[in-house]
Amino acid sequence: MKVYQIGNEAGIDALTLVERPEPKPEYGQILVRVRAVSLNYRDLIIVESNRTDSNSHVIPMSDGAGEVVAVGVGVTRVKVGARVAGTFFQDWVSGNINAKVMKSAMGGEIDGMLAEYVTLNQNGVVLLPNHLSYEEGATLPCAAVTAWHALVTKGNLKAGETVLILGTGGVSIFALQFAKLHGARVIVTSSSDEKLERAKALGADDTINYKTTPNWEEAVYRLTDSTGVDHVVEVGGAGTLQKSIKAVRYGGYISLIGVLTGFGGEINPQPILGKSITLQGIYVGSREMFEAMNRAIAHHQLKPQIDRTFSLSEAKAAYQYLKSGSHFGKVVIQL
Amino acid sequence: MKVYQIGNEAGIDALTLVERPEPKPEYGQILVRVRAVSLNYRDLIIVESNRTDSNSHVIPMSDGAGEVVAVGVGVTRVKVGARVAGTFFQDWVSGNINAKVMKSAMGGEIDGMLAEYVTLNQNGVVLLPNHLSYEEGATLPCAAVTAWHALVTKGNLKAGETVLILGTGGVSIFALQFAKLHGARVIVTSSSDEKLERAKALGADDTINYKTTPNWEEAVYRLTDSTGVDHVVEVGGAGTLQKSIKAVRYGGYISLIGVLTGFGGEINPQPILGKSITLQGIYVGSREMFEAMNRAIAHHQLKPQIDRTFSLSEAKAAYQYLKSGSHFGKVVIQL
Amino acid sequence: MKVYQIGNEAGIDALTLVERPEPKPEYGQILVRVRAVSLNYRDLIIVESNRTDSNSHVIPMSDGAGEVVAVGVGVTRVKVGARVAGTFFQDWVSGNINAKVMKSAMGGEIDGMLAEYVTLNQNGVVLLPNHLSYEEGATLPCAAVTAWHALVTKGNLKAGETVLILGTGGVSIFALQFAKLHGARVIVTSSSDEKLERAKALGADDTINYKTTPNWEEAVYRLTDSTGVDHVVEVGGAGTLQKSIKAVRYGGYISLIGVLTGFGGEINPQPILGKSITLQGIYVGSREMFEAMNRAIAHHQLKPQIDRTFSLSEAKAAYQYLKSGSHFGKVVIQL
Amino acid sequence: MKVYQIGNEAGIDALTLVERPEPKPEYGQILVRVRAVSLNYRDLIIVESNRTDSNSHVIPMSDGAGEVVAVGVGVTRVKVGARVAGTFFQDWVSGNINAKVMKSAMGGEIDGMLAEYVTLNQNGVVLLPNHLSYEEGATLPCAAVTAWHALVTKGNLKAGETVLILGTGGVSIFALQFAKLHGARVIVTSSSDEKLERAKALGADDTINYKTTPNWEEAVYRLTDSTGVDHVVEVGGAGTLQKSIKAVRYGGYISLIGVLTGFGGEINPQPILGKSITLQGIYVGSREMFEAMNRAIAHHQLKPQIDRTFSLSEAKAAYQYLKSGSHFGKVVIQL
Repeated sequence: MKVYQIGNEAGIDALTLVERPEPKPEYGQILVRVRAVSLNYRDLIIVESNRTDSNSHVIPMSDGAGEVVAVGVGVTRVKVGARVAGTFFQDWVSGNINAKVMKSAMGGEIDGMLAEYVTLNQNGVVLLPNHLSYEEGATLPCAAVTAWHALVTKGNLKAGETVLILGTGGVSIFALQFAKLHGARVIVTSSSDEKLERAKALGADDTINYKTTPNWEEAVYRLTDSTGVDHVVEVGGAGTLQKSIKAVRYGGYISLIGVLTGFGGEINPQPILGKSITLQGIYVGSREMFEAMNRAIAHHQLKPQIDRTFSLSEAKAAYQYLKSGSHFGKVVIQL
Repeated sequence: MKVYQIGNEAGIDALTLVERPEPKPEYGQILVRVRAVSLNYRDLIIVESNRTDSNSHVIPMSDGAGEVVAVGVGVTRVKVGARVAGTFFQDWVSGNINAKVMKSAMGGEIDGMLAEYVTLNQNGVVLLPNHLSYEEGATLPCAAVTAWHALVTKGNLKAGETVLILGTGGVSIFALQFAKLHGARVIVTSSSDEKLERAKALGADDTINYKTTPNWEEAVYRLTDSTGVDHVVEVGGAGTLQKSIKAVRYGGYISLIGVLTGFGGEINPQPILGKSITLQGIYVGSREMFEAMNRAIAHHQLKPQIDRTFSLSEAKAAYQYLKSGSHFGKVVIQL
Repeated sequence: MKVYQIGNEAGIDALTLVERPEPKPEYGQILVRVRAVSLNYRDLIIVESNRTDSNSHVIPMSDGAGEVVAVGVGVTRVKVGARVAGTFFQDWVSGNINAKVMKSAMGGEIDGMLAEYVTLNQNGVVLLPNHLSYEEGATLPCAAVTAWHALVTKGNLKAGETVLILGTGGVSIFALQFAKLHGARVIVTSSSDEKLERAKALGADDTINYKTTPNWEEAVYRLTDSTGVDHVVEVGGAGTLQKSIKAVRYGGYISLIGVLTGFGGEINPQPILGKSITLQGIYVGSREMFEAMNRAIAHHQLKPQIDRTFSLSEAKAAYQYLKSGSHFGKVVIQL
Repeated sequence: MKVYQIGNEAGIDALTLVERPEPKPEYGQILVRVRAVSLNYRDLIIVESNRTDSNSHVIPMSDGAGEVVAVGVGVTRVKVGARVAGTFFQDWVSGNINAKVMKSAMGGEIDGMLAEYVTLNQNGVVLLPNHLSYEEGATLPCAAVTAWHALVTKGNLKAGETVLILGTGGVSIFALQFAKLHGARVIVTSSSDEKLERAKALGADDTINYKTTPNWEEAVYRLTDSTGVDHVVEVGGAGTLQKSIKAVRYGGYISLIGVLTGFGGEINPQPILGKSITLQGIYVGSREMFEAMNRAIAHHQLKPQIDRTFSLSEAKAAYQYLKSGSHFGKVVIQL
């Protein structure tokens, strides 16, 4: 079978497409014919960082969906023919995150999904909602679960509350969709008026172009009657965090989302105290969250926003496209 | 000014419309020209029960809305001209319910709103959402806050969860509207196909006529893939509670809503244990809940469902109409 | 190996001690040499009820502790030589209870621990705190986890709150110990002054003999300045529940604990509403709760209260002794 | 009456003791004969910062206790003769913090307690536990409520969890005492072995001298089996925060406590994300928290740790002493 592996050297160009023998499902495992994968910024960072010893030749990419084509002994949770997506953390079923969970992240600590066939533990998958294609299902494991964890599981978002969402990448667009499902008011920022128009079409109540409005935190304040927003989905990094802290209300909530090595810069923690803010690091989520989210997605026939789809042989181009930052929603590769 | 008072004897006929001097706002109080009141089943029970010593001559009805026409010394929270609704419990601003709060319920423990003018403490009112008339605003203090408290504050309702709502009275219809705001799936029961049609028009996903389907709890089970619902809004009493317990999932949640003396019959508590159910008595809610709810109502321009409006002189007819049980949503009296 | 099995007919006398081949651990399983088991009231009910078809020949008793003597392929969580206790629900690691979890209760739905050797899934055990003997460790899976779940996980018990504990059986004594660990005030009821003395020695702040004080709920009220307690650990059944509802404060919390078929009688649900009470059915708990509890037990070198220890051949006498109700704390069988 | 006021210029020396007429309680107010006040680091910062226009001549110090000597019209919550402490935020009864609450902080935004007599709104006081002197009671409003809010209200601290407490100032020692009340394990850091001994005497399980162990975060890690602590009470500032983030477990909780202008330096927010940490700014708390805390203090006859007591005329010396940092627990002034 065809499979990509991370190179000995850093960089997208070091990715190689190789032929490997098709894996066999062991006790408790299932064999999945992968049909689509989706890219996250973390995938890019992993490929670009030089961590030769730890993840050279690892199969990249955490997010994928496909069909169960065989099951090992002892498998009771899924059947051959089932349409599934893998969970980002293979060992996080429910409960709290811990050190063991951290070691089970696909496409980094362990092999990922950019292969025609993968074996996964039966506990490491969820059923896809019926109305979703494999491409759409492949967008969920990292970005969608992160957004759900931040706003719904931890954030307890309620109708009438206001959410500030930075940008229009994968997590941000899912956050917009889930916030609207829960009746919240949503403010979106971007540097592109065209993307802001698309966010409005998805339900954004207010939009701010942070290029033409560099003091966007003040614009947010004005939009909330000088109170500040209840939640911020913060994907920007240290630079935007200072402004997000200004844009949130007393006692408000900021979900810190990003990538393990991509959050540069420093912030002054004093205003976190002065405004009694909760700053919550969100790193994807559990299978239990994924299943609760899928129930909502299925009930509302919600469609993930796919920006562009590449073929398997174009995988490097897909990475380059993500790196360019011009996407709105998710970038997908079909297998 | 004209004001109704509860009679020395029990019964709707003992209500009397009398003339009283207009009250004056004392320190921290506001004077409200009441423009509309709404009826709850509790109001009926209070009038029909013979509690002569405790509430004879009390002004009935907890729910009303009007205009602030004067303020006493020390009032800073509201201004003359403000459009307000009173809070059911005059002493429940936020935090937990307690014995002191219980003594501040309007139209029972203390005077209510069925009068042309009332004085209220400045802390005992909320501003009406701009898009609501006085009649619509008057429907909120008891029924809407109860539904919000049950499903949102305590219930932490999330998109994709399933809510079973019994009946189509005031609390039930608000519960339906709030559940839909939060992206939940809603199943409504009623004995009237016509009312079920109206519930569907408001967003109910599934409906069950409990007259033609006496084993409605089994129908609920089938509608939820034999899992049971996540939440039940239980307004029926001991008779329906047994069935609600059957209709809820393991670890599910039942909000027990009703009226202080109107919940007859007995239940076997064993299945509450066997299914790990949380049974939560909900008795209206705090001003903080009311304000959070109003924010959602304002954002969504949500309209309360008024069944029928009576004039002040027809107050007894309004009580009779509520007693007949033929209403869908709220019964209102204009002043 | 020697193993007890439930008889074809109902009753303690139908229990039989038989010889069976020693089981072998399959993939992911461990083989445990059981050293001690402890009895719960549920074990008695299962043996006494005539459920021939469903659990005849099932190995009884959910609670046991022993040494890991062999591990199957794929076992990474425990090592040979580890001292472990089984979890009551073999399939409840963390998260919410559900229908699948309910089918994994040992000593009822599946085989239990009253055998010299048992095989368990590696996920179905916890490590014993070092300071505990096997006898002490065997008391934890059902009674202790139930008490922890009720007061700590769900109850969020805080220092200074008041807990009412009915009786001095297994769950009640653990509830007393855990409540004291969290700085709560504890009131214990019993019909025996001698048992109340022992409860005092374990830290009970106040005790009430419900035989000499039949209106014990009024005594509780007086002890709490006519406010009522914050939490009730309700193990009595419908009869005591009416009184517990009277003894709890507005907005208070009652944990309903008991056995699946042993909670006779009916109650009027009206006061649950009138006092805004939360009535929470508690049915043991997850492994995650068990582990959190063990951490507290280890830190405080807390000792479970063992009332009496029987030998394997005296198992029927142990059941009879539990049935007599004269125990204080737990009844244990050594193997 | 004698009263201190903040000077026109910055600095402790600019504090002046002046004579003012005794205030009279207006509607809803009480007159308190202050008997003791306690110092917080915030008091020092306010006096030392040059904020002439905003709080010159304001009466300093948020924390005080005394006797109610007169009540205004409309006072029902407290009686003449009651022993009370004021709440730090006069307008925070319960619920969430907000902009209005922030404007009601005594000794800064509004007059404080360093006066022989003060008038307070009846809602801005709590009753002192009977076993506490006025000096002890005066230590509670800021430091103790902050520690309770962090660990108990927000932190939901449970027995067996591990808490890391930085330093031995007012908040830290209360945090130590409250953590022990809830059965937690406590690790305390200090630069003084003598203070660490005193912390041990109050129940600290482990202590670390950060002078002799500059990499104290690694020592913490070793003490927790390389897992990290569950909670950190972070009072140090940006410098220690980096280490605290290393010392906490995945998914752990850091309470950020300090003073509005005293939290210098910057931190890299990336590890907050990488470890899924919750960083929670804690700024004192509500009256509801204060009352819950007092219940625990009363039940356990817990004694605040007073380091040294000064007379009214020595107030400047008290500020100097706090500034020196040599205290363990609270610094008090008697009136």
